[in-house]
Amino acid sequence: MDRDKILLTPGPLTTTLRTKLAMLRDWGSWDADFNAVTAGLRRSLLQIVQGTDSHVVVPLQGSGTFSVEAAVATVVPRDGHVLVLDNGAYCKRAARLTTMMGRRCSVLAFDEAQPVSADALDDKLQSDASISHVVLIHCETGAGVLNPLQAVAEVCEKHGKGLIVDAMSSFGALEIDARKTRFDALVAASGKCLEGVPGMGFVFIRKAVLDACAGNSQSLAMDLHDQYVYMEKTTQWRFTPPTHVVVALAEAVRQFEEEGGQPARLERYTANYEVLVQGMAALGFKPFLDPAVQAPIIVTFHAPDHPAYQFKAFYEAAKRHGFILYPGKLTQIETFRVGCIGAIGPDEMRQAVQAVGLAMREMGIPCTD
Amino acid sequence: MDRDKILLTPGPLTTTLRTKLAMLRDWGSWDADFNAVTAGLRRSLLQIVQGTDSHVVVPLQGSGTFSVEAAVATVVPRDGHVLVLDNGAYCKRAARLTTMMGRRCSVLAFDEAQPVSADALDDKLQSDASISHVVLIHCETGAGVLNPLQAVAEVCEKHGKGLIVDAMSSFGALEIDARKTRFDALVAASGKCLEGVPGMGFVFIRKAVLDACAGNSQSLAMDLHDQYVYMEKTTQWRFTPPTHVVVALAEAVRQFEEEGGQPARLERYTANYEVLVQGMAALGFKPFLDPAVQAPIIVTFHAPDHPAYQFKAFYEAAKRHGFILYPGKLTQIETFRVGCIGAIGPDEMRQAVQAVGLAMREMGIPCTD
Repeated sequence: MDRDKILLTPGPLTTTLRTKLAMLRDWGSWDADFNAVTAGLRRSLLQIVQGTDSHVVVPLQGSGTFSVEAAVATVVPRDGHVLVLDNGAYCKRAARLTTMMGRRCSVLAFDEAQPVSADALDDKLQSDASISHVVLIHCETGAGVLNPLQAVAEVCEKHGKGLIVDAMSSFGALEIDARKTRFDALVAASGKCLEGVPGMGFVFIRKAVLDACAGNSQSLAMDLHDQYVYMEKTTQWRFTPPTHVVVALAEAVRQFEEEGGQPARLERYTANYEVLVQGMAALGFKPFLDPAVQAPIIVTFHAPDHPAYQFKAFYEAAKRHGFILYPGKLTQIETFRVGCIGAIGPDEMRQAVQAVGLAMREMGIPCTD
Repeated sequence: MDRDKILLTPGPLTTTLRTKLAMLRDWGSWDADFNAVTAGLRRSLLQIVQGTDSHVVVPLQGSGTFSVEAAVATVVPRDGHVLVLDNGAYCKRAARLTTMMGRRCSVLAFDEAQPVSADALDDKLQSDASISHVVLIHCETGAGVLNPLQAVAEVCEKHGKGLIVDAMSSFGALEIDARKTRFDALVAASGKCLEGVPGMGFVFIRKAVLDACAGNSQSLAMDLHDQYVYMEKTTQWRFTPPTHVVVALAEAVRQFEEEGGQPARLERYTANYEVLVQGMAALGFKPFLDPAVQAPIIVTFHAPDHPAYQFKAFYEAAKRHGFILYPGKLTQIETFRVGCIGAIGPDEMRQAVQAVGLAMREMGIPCTD
């Protein structure tokens, strides 16, 4: 049976057929019809964060990481000093790209099983006045931890520091309200909780800092200020846009709105998460994180402590039963990850748990259930 | 009638339904099935330039310009000196991105209606030994000029200089043979003459210079050496690939091979070009370029010298009749452009000429025909 597998991965993820069908048409990138799609999409994205008054949104070609790099390059001046709050792999990547582009970068390290601490940030900003910007990963999918966006934003505001938020894995699922939470830049991408296909990111930039961003970037492709100015002037993207990805995202956002927006999406993902964790617990699997710090986006499970276990064989067995799992990203502990996001509901999660149980049995590893 | 318009634009362009249908499936970016698609695509791309022995190919997320920037950032050392052979808008863009990233950059300027001169390059390299790399745009679509790749490559080889070729608009249609033509990097993209959808580029890098590329890039996202090393080690892309764009390109390349590869594609585009130019001449339109320097990719026409002519109205009228034209990119002269590339043949070009004639009549501009 060549039935499509369900992706339990944190993007690319399973999208609806309706979203994919939007790609069955070619669009001229200079044409007004296409530019109206871009404009409508940008309006919708701003509404999702209640940011129409306070922010602009700038789409960018490429993967989400390209948009993170572009956000840092655009918002942080050449002589800025970035502090990355680090509790996982994506934080380390943000620090690496910041250092590579020549911005001064410091790292405040936390346990990867715990959220970063706004109090520790407060102390750090007190003691080092040279820091100009803070980078926070909202949901660090390395382990799946939800970081305290609101508390971190308040500390940054108190000290007058810029805040850059990587909201890649949380945007659309967890509440982000630009009226309540002050950020200079917030980054997300098409192929995550909005359930589009991968190929573009987008960055919200606070209007109050926008003009000062001119000339910061040392990369033409990643200059979000230049992209913004050109787009406002011409309605077009500066360089060839991924037209099919853009129209698929616009179609995905329409379905997001029809479903009831972020609260409805969070509700569905939370239901997915609960079915998953309860079902896996019944099979004897333990989540790596304390549920109190776990986002309902992606769950890290300890690998079974059994000599017959190998991730590759486990992955292949689950795939034969229709589900694509995700490897762990922790360096010290053997884990695997299961995403709760995408165009799937509790039924698919129940089937996924069943597939995991079958996979274990086939590997000769006893399950509780 | 909401029939799809034919795109006479130099990418995004009209693709086959078969190519678009390949996007109706979601792929896990970590999964072996998807990574086999990437590997097969890379093998096919290398075969198109006969570069399997001499070069590697590194795909990159984003538009073609991202890949041009990445090629310069990866191949040119921080203390390198780039000479851009400039006969149009895309040359100027290459110079701009090179300067922005902090590489020393010089420009050798030519008339935008003429190919760049290999003899002038020879003189320049003779007189300035500090130049380390030359950037050439193979087909400069600003006007549509075909530049002398082989002659420029020979001059670069004679002087021991690196050559970076932007072959965005020529790759797949015009002959490029890595066994005959020495280049350090050659850049193209998915949504051009291979007739895929836009969203990724790819860069051929000469194996002899590959190791020296480590650490050159000041951008993480655009570090093609890092992308290459990771891809060889893991079979995966470093950051989320545009999965649907990748599988669409793989499907487009299969059709490219079935059609008969580059010679067959050149033959079809040349037929398109001839039908277009003859038909437009019959309507009284004059091409901007001397046919001797014109690539059969995109043709720049002088706008009619008539007070009723306005590009916007002309564009809208042609669009109503089913065809999307492209604006001119010359600064001094009023022109428009018509692409000859995409999943179209002489029938579509004849219909396009007819649509142009109708548009002129509707604007009240007399046509010869």
